[in-house]
Amino acid sequence: MTNALEVTAPDGVPYLDAAREFDYPARQVFRAHVDPEVYAEWIGPDRLTTRVDGFEPVSGGSYRFVQTDDDGGEFAFRGVFHTVRPDEFILQTFEYEGYPDHASLEYLHFEDLPGGRSRMHGRSLYPSVETRDNFLSSGMEAGMAAGLDKLEQLLAFATA
Amino acid sequence: MTNALEVTAPDGVPYLDAAREFDYPARQVFRAHVDPEVYAEWIGPDRLTTRVDGFEPVSGGSYRFVQTDDDGGEFAFRGVFHTVRPDEFILQTFEYEGYPDHASLEYLHFEDLPGGRSRMHGRSLYPSVETRDNFLSSGMEAGMAAGLDKLEQLLAFATA
Repeated sequence: MTNALEVTAPDGVPYLDAAREFDYPARQVFRAHVDPEVYAEWIGPDRLTTRVDGFEPVSGGSYRFVQTDDDGGEFAFRGVFHTVRPDEFILQTFEYEGYPDHASLEYLHFEDLPGGRSRMHGRSLYPSVETRDNFLSSGMEAGMAAGLDKLEQLLAFATA
Repeated sequence: MTNALEVTAPDGVPYLDAAREFDYPARQVFRAHVDPEVYAEWIGPDRLTTRVDGFEPVSGGSYRFVQTDDDGGEFAFRGVFHTVRPDEFILQTFEYEGYPDHASLEYLHFEDLPGGRSRMHGRSLYPSVETRDNFLSSGMEAGMAAGLDKLEQLLAFATA
């Protein structure tokens, strides 16, 4: 996998930056973020199954999804879309309901690269460095990486 | 005025912290943040008149307001409410439409103090230190302070 997720979490600031390239155009990667059925297929680590429970990917809309593990454990996430600009930009809040009032603000940009490829990059802002580090120590980065690998596999399958 | 706004903007981090006390209970200060007619009376500096153009202060709702100066200049702001918990907590996004894609995430807590007084405190997270400093250099702090002074005057008038 050459299109690996790169996460940077600088010391002393309450955010992290993430970037990943895809062998597919920005519009396809964007679509995988706003189609609830596709989103449920790829978001999160492999061991969790996702059920979307509301998904309005437009400026001013809301979303909620619930992830379930094999032992019946449930993990719910919710947020609001501040801006959704097709094929380009998503700005949304994100909260794990098990860690309430620690929502982050997520900037996500989609950009085309030559040769039908694209690059997605973003910044997630947390209410404190401690909150960011708690998310990181929960295995978030591995879950993001696994999810985005699945996203690329879905695009490969859809375009095969 | 002993209940002055205190703003702290530490070097090198993309947020600012703000706090202010009021001679009125948390529930009254909270209400002034969620009643659109009252909100339009106090938000912003004296020289601007505010028109609320959508205001749904519930979790998942949106808002927009437009401020006008005597020369006909217009300044529009919009955002989404991630969480609204009556009398206690508001978590929302905030964007000046003239500076698009630089939205902040605003944490706002309302707490009662002895003697019928209360304290409001919050953190605003910006996408970068530069964005925060651009807002600060635009006179935002003076505008916030003037607005909250007006809020307290409205409460004094309403309870006189």
